Amino acid sequence: MDNIFFIVPIASILALGFAWFFFKSMMKNSEGTDRMKEIAQYVREGAMAYLNRQYKVVTIVFVILFILLTIMAYFKVQNPFVPVAFLTGGFFSGLCGFLGMKTATFASARTAHGASQSLNKGLQVAFRSGAVMGLVVVGFALLDIAAWFLILNEWVYTPDNMANGLHFLGLNLVNAHPEYVTEGVINSAGERVKLIEITVTMLTFGMGASTQALFARVGGGIYTKAADVGADLVGKVEAGIPEDDPRNPATIADNVGDNVGDVAGMGADLYESYAGSILATAALGASLPALVMKDAGLTAYQAVLAPMMVAAIGIILSIIGIFMVRTKESATQKNLLNALLLGTGGSSVLILLAMIGLVFLGWVTWGVFWAVVIGLAAGVIIGQATEFFTSDEYKPTKGIAKQAQQGPATTIIDGVAVGMTSTWIPVVTIVLGIMGAFWASGGAQHFAMGVYGIGFAAVGMLSTLGITLATDAFGPIADNAGGNAEMAELDPKVRERTDALDMLGNTTAATGKGFAIGSAALTAMALISAYMEEVRLWFSKIAKAGEGFVTKGGMDFYVDVPEGVNGIEIASASVKQFSAAYDITLFNPLFLGGIFIGSMMAFLFSALTMKAVGRAAGIMIDEVRRQFREMKGILTGETKPDYAKCVAISTKGAQGEMMLPSIVAIAVPVIVGAAMGVAGVVGLLAGGLTTGFTLAVFMNNAGGAWDNAKKYIEKGNYGGKGSEAHHAAVVGDTVGDPFKDTSGPSLNILIKLMTMVSVVMAGLTVTLSLL
Amino acid sequence: MDNIFFIVPIASILALGFAWFFFKSMMKNSEGTDRMKEIAQYVREGAMAYLNRQYKVVTIVFVILFILLTIMAYFKVQNPFVPVAFLTGGFFSGLCGFLGMKTATFASARTAHGASQSLNKGLQVAFRSGAVMGLVVVGFALLDIAAWFLILNEWVYTPDNMANGLHFLGLNLVNAHPEYVTEGVINSAGERVKLIEITVTMLTFGMGASTQALFARVGGGIYTKAADVGADLVGKVEAGIPEDDPRNPATIADNVGDNVGDVAGMGADLYESYAGSILATAALGASLPALVMKDAGLTAYQAVLAPMMVAAIGIILSIIGIFMVRTKESATQKNLLNALLLGTGGSSVLILLAMIGLVFLGWVTWGVFWAVVIGLAAGVIIGQATEFFTSDEYKPTKGIAKQAQQGPATTIIDGVAVGMTSTWIPVVTIVLGIMGAFWASGGAQHFAMGVYGIGFAAVGMLSTLGITLATDAFGPIADNAGGNAEMAELDPKVRERTDALDMLGNTTAATGKGFAIGSAALTAMALISAYMEEVRLWFSKIAKAGEGFVTKGGMDFYVDVPEGVNGIEIASASVKQFSAAYDITLFNPLFLGGIFIGSMMAFLFSALTMKAVGRAAGIMIDEVRRQFREMKGILTGETKPDYAKCVAISTKGAQGEMMLPSIVAIAVPVIVGAAMGVAGVVGLLAGGLTTGFTLAVFMNNAGGAWDNAKKYIEKGNYGGKGSEAHHAAVVGDTVGDPFKDTSGPSLNILIKLMTMVSVVMAGLTVTLSLL
Repeated sequence: MDNIFFIVPIASILALGFAWFFFKSMMKNSEGTDRMKEIAQYVREGAMAYLNRQYKVVTIVFVILFILLTIMAYFKVQNPFVPVAFLTGGFFSGLCGFLGMKTATFASARTAHGASQSLNKGLQVAFRSGAVMGLVVVGFALLDIAAWFLILNEWVYTPDNMANGLHFLGLNLVNAHPEYVTEGVINSAGERVKLIEITVTMLTFGMGASTQALFARVGGGIYTKAADVGADLVGKVEAGIPEDDPRNPATIADNVGDNVGDVAGMGADLYESYAGSILATAALGASLPALVMKDAGLTAYQAVLAPMMVAAIGIILSIIGIFMVRTKESATQKNLLNALLLGTGGSSVLILLAMIGLVFLGWVTWGVFWAVVIGLAAGVIIGQATEFFTSDEYKPTKGIAKQAQQGPATTIIDGVAVGMTSTWIPVVTIVLGIMGAFWASGGAQHFAMGVYGIGFAAVGMLSTLGITLATDAFGPIADNAGGNAEMAELDPKVRERTDALDMLGNTTAATGKGFAIGSAALTAMALISAYMEEVRLWFSKIAKAGEGFVTKGGMDFYVDVPEGVNGIEIASASVKQFSAAYDITLFNPLFLGGIFIGSMMAFLFSALTMKAVGRAAGIMIDEVRRQFREMKGILTGETKPDYAKCVAISTKGAQGEMMLPSIVAIAVPVIVGAAMGVAGVVGLLAGGLTTGFTLAVFMNNAGGAWDNAKKYIEKGNYGGKGSEAHHAAVVGDTVGDPFKDTSGPSLNILIKLMTMVSVVMAGLTVTLSLL
Repeated sequence: MDNIFFIVPIASILALGFAWFFFKSMMKNSEGTDRMKEIAQYVREGAMAYLNRQYKVVTIVFVILFILLTIMAYFKVQNPFVPVAFLTGGFFSGLCGFLGMKTATFASARTAHGASQSLNKGLQVAFRSGAVMGLVVVGFALLDIAAWFLILNEWVYTPDNMANGLHFLGLNLVNAHPEYVTEGVINSAGERVKLIEITVTMLTFGMGASTQALFARVGGGIYTKAADVGADLVGKVEAGIPEDDPRNPATIADNVGDNVGDVAGMGADLYESYAGSILATAALGASLPALVMKDAGLTAYQAVLAPMMVAAIGIILSIIGIFMVRTKESATQKNLLNALLLGTGGSSVLILLAMIGLVFLGWVTWGVFWAVVIGLAAGVIIGQATEFFTSDEYKPTKGIAKQAQQGPATTIIDGVAVGMTSTWIPVVTIVLGIMGAFWASGGAQHFAMGVYGIGFAAVGMLSTLGITLATDAFGPIADNAGGNAEMAELDPKVRERTDALDMLGNTTAATGKGFAIGSAALTAMALISAYMEEVRLWFSKIAKAGEGFVTKGGMDFYVDVPEGVNGIEIASASVKQFSAAYDITLFNPLFLGGIFIGSMMAFLFSALTMKAVGRAAGIMIDEVRRQFREMKGILTGETKPDYAKCVAISTKGAQGEMMLPSIVAIAVPVIVGAAMGVAGVVGLLAGGLTTGFTLAVFMNNAGGAWDNAKKYIEKGNYGGKGSEAHHAAVVGDTVGDPFKDTSGPSLNILIKLMTMVSVVMAGLTVTLSLL
């Protein structure tokens, strides 16, 4: 093991250490008045109540999936480490959600109190609390990766085990291959097989992160909107009390929802993308043909470790970036934004410099460097496009506000049109990004290098996640701080300051959503390529030798590249032969059928999550109405509403309602795999990725544009608050809420989860296809 | 030439003859009172004014495209017959629109007058007038096909021309191949090449039909909604006058719109599908490898002519079906529906019997028979699913009506969810249909046979178009009859009867829309396969011999299948080699990039058409307001409004607004072809087809469900007309209008047009890819 590898666990521990440091320093701040403490305590309890229930449900699902995976391992269609890796992936993702939420709910009152002192103080508390979330996500993800790599590399795939075979729980873990070991040392052929096995096994622990993300993102999305609608519709509209008023029984649930959806949900989503992109790229690195690596001047170890190293460096630079975020006491909105941009932009520039260093150290090629540049640029462009289509400073959102004068129908039509139009820039960016990363890294000459480069584009986009996630998580903290200030009846000046922070949070959240979907697309792309490798590996394990080019395209290809033969030709021919063997071409109706089903899945999943919000909100509305009706003292302020009941109802509703979409998302790839084979699965993933991405952009941006069109009118345009235009805009905003906060973001999960399920099921799919 | 071929031109002339007969017998009916005649005359003039303008614009576009195609032919990247075939395809499609509209506008007053006598009389007039549209569409489409086949087969590809080469306008039309002719007769190798060239040339005349359909369907869709919104918003809402009131300046334009959108638009759409599916299947038949045909016991001629024969038989059976539609004087709504079902169902059953006859005559295989069964079944299932999700007799639409009680936002959210959910049945049906047709026709053994079978599923679905289109076109005629009765102030009993017919028309229109999108999907699928053949043909023409398997996979493959070699293996290996040559696999980022862009195109095109409606409606609204303002006598009935001005404005708006989406739809496949090659184009078509289909089903069904939810409330549910729920449902209906009448149906056109443009550009794309 190269000593430089230890930068990976060191960086991850560093991230966790700084997270602890930021947490501690945040906790030193005062929570303010007793009333502020009390409110914060309600939100904290609500958030924990939600998490407890979610973890209970998640535990049941994990136990079921663990048993299924173990059974699969027993029948040798699954690596026996996978069930365990699955659990750790899920556990760490869940832990991040827990710590992030804990921090956020401790931070809200402290941010409000900080804002009562100065704007900068408020920003510091909120932003550094967000940084806790950012750093635990990258820290635990990378720690998990490093730990597994160490365990598998050092203790499982030892020369003895490689030569003699290791049995574990009665299962054959490592096939006995004496030829992989020369004089007690694993030789180069053995090393490649070993790294492929390790990375492909590790890849499947992403399944744990995906399952956790499903519950956090989809369940959180349903929760937050159900609570929001309940609070708004009954409290604001029917009872006529203002936003965040303590008399509203759903107000605590609403504040909890911000944390549940935007902190825990977003965190789990990006945890999955982060881990997935690193693992997929490592697997693609391990599968680079030997002669391709030789041409590129890389060893197999370097190709596998490089994505982890980039992530490790990204962590260190993110920490530096976090310290760069500070502003003057007299800061304007623009100053605040610039402060955040300095942090995120600064760490991105630094990561490019570090990449150049890695090139000169011979760890990555110049092509990979450019792929990272492309990945970072794609993230920025998608973020900017999101900003253009959803900010009220530009034509699209202003146009919706104008249409609102003619009533709700034209508002909806125009918003749908804006959302649909807005898909073009992100799609073209992703297409150019994929193609650019492929060619820049040398895909035209070395096919596998090009795919490896695409993986690196995703790794590059996510390398500074430590700080970008901080800017995302900071928004809901500021939002909650505002709620706290309102409920605790602090000086309006405090609310003004938290509002400034909140508005800043909305801007970063919009670009953050573009970033989340962009990285999900690139990660899914890398995962699909890795899926092919996984299938190829299983194929070579299961298919008997001598059955023609299929086996030749499988394991033989990894091991027996004869010296002197043109490696490029072999690699490229092998990939083509392999894809021809599985007919992953448009001539195959299974492939086209898969694309069709993938497309449909995106629409169906959106419909299911939207319906779920509707039903969960309905229960919430009934409960709030019941409290107002039965507890007469609430509106006069004499009786305290039963906040906990609303939290409990929203929690139960969200977790119950997410079962159907979850089952569909997990079951369909399995069914398609069993019924339509590898070609059907690849089609499903391609259709799901492309339509899911486009639909998500549409829903996110339409929702964002409606939201801001409403705010634009509330600023006094077209008649301002209470005008006909405003009423129409409120309808648009209400329609947009589940679009942008539930269904749209949930599609990120669908795209990645379906791919992950397919990766985990590859052994079964291949076995069935060979029956 | 086999004499049995003449059934094809005979059937098409028969169709035109019966169309003439139905037209004449409709014209014998009285148009009723002077007032009725006057109103009918207004609508007729408006419709013709619209068509005149459309044809002017279309002519300009056709001239430009004709010149471009001629230039391409000059540079030998296009067959020189293509520009001419392009013109005839467009001309006949346009002629169908003209005749159909003429008939419909002559029929409305006569239907109203017929309904004043009896319900059956009204049904007869309306339905047989619809049958004129159905029969001219199938008649002219098949006549054009038959004529071109005769011309090319008898006069162009003669033995002399094949051996010596024919020059035409200075262009080499037929390459000199002495080896194709033995003793003055074209030998079997020559016959195959000849049929491939003929069918592939004919295929491109579908481009003319596509271009015409683009203008008719998209322009018509914009027109009809702009007029509708103008009439409703200003007339009904602002001025408070009832629907179809003669005082409303936009009312004539509204009635014209029904004809323009639902008669001419739908007709041109299905003309394109009908011609496209027959031509694509013929091309796929011609490209069947010789030994595959031998195994199936077919000659090349039979494989090419079979789809035309099925269409010809379908025409005859449609005519019989039309005569079967009649009902008692005391008919209920259910009787009426059953009468229509007897006609359409009867002709479908008969076509299956005829297919069995063709099997015994050795013209088609049993596999093809089952493919036709599957195609017909798929059409019925999609139609039924549409009915389930959009009729107020079932839960989805009732659910929307219930949600309407909570306001417009929940109405919209629930409708979007219903529309998205409704995609699953049609998608699964199409996937099972494609896979079923592939396997049933023997795709597992003979790859090319499977693809040929998919083509036949489309041909089968459309074989009885003569009568199914009659049931579609009859709706707007009944609708117009109702308008006529209203404006002419006839006995309310007449309006009741026309309303019964109209409601029946709405039911058939909903299933008709499902049928149109289903057939568009299967046609596009067949066209994509034919595109591959087109590329292969161009490839073999352009690529120099001796450049490896590419040429081997091209022309050599068609001609030199050695006797004694297993034909199955050759065919399947060749297809795989070919697709590998073009990397049409998911490993190729160009292919995945193409899928992404195809997905995005569906969303972008929908957005553009929706925006176009908004703008065109805006101009209309201004005009109606202006007339009310400046001509004070209108509302009192003293002054006649300027109907023609509204018609002119709507016409101009529709034609102007459709330029941008049209240019995008035509240009993107060309750009993708030039920049991303064949793999990119195939991806674009696959992504456009799958996402376009799913999005179209979503938009059609959401729109249909909103419409019927509103009508359900108007029947007195949830408070009935004027209630809060009704107001919310009206918002849903208004949003749904451009969904279901403009953007949704326009996607049919996008899917087929992009494929057609790619087929026509194949020569250029291949040439560029070989530079």
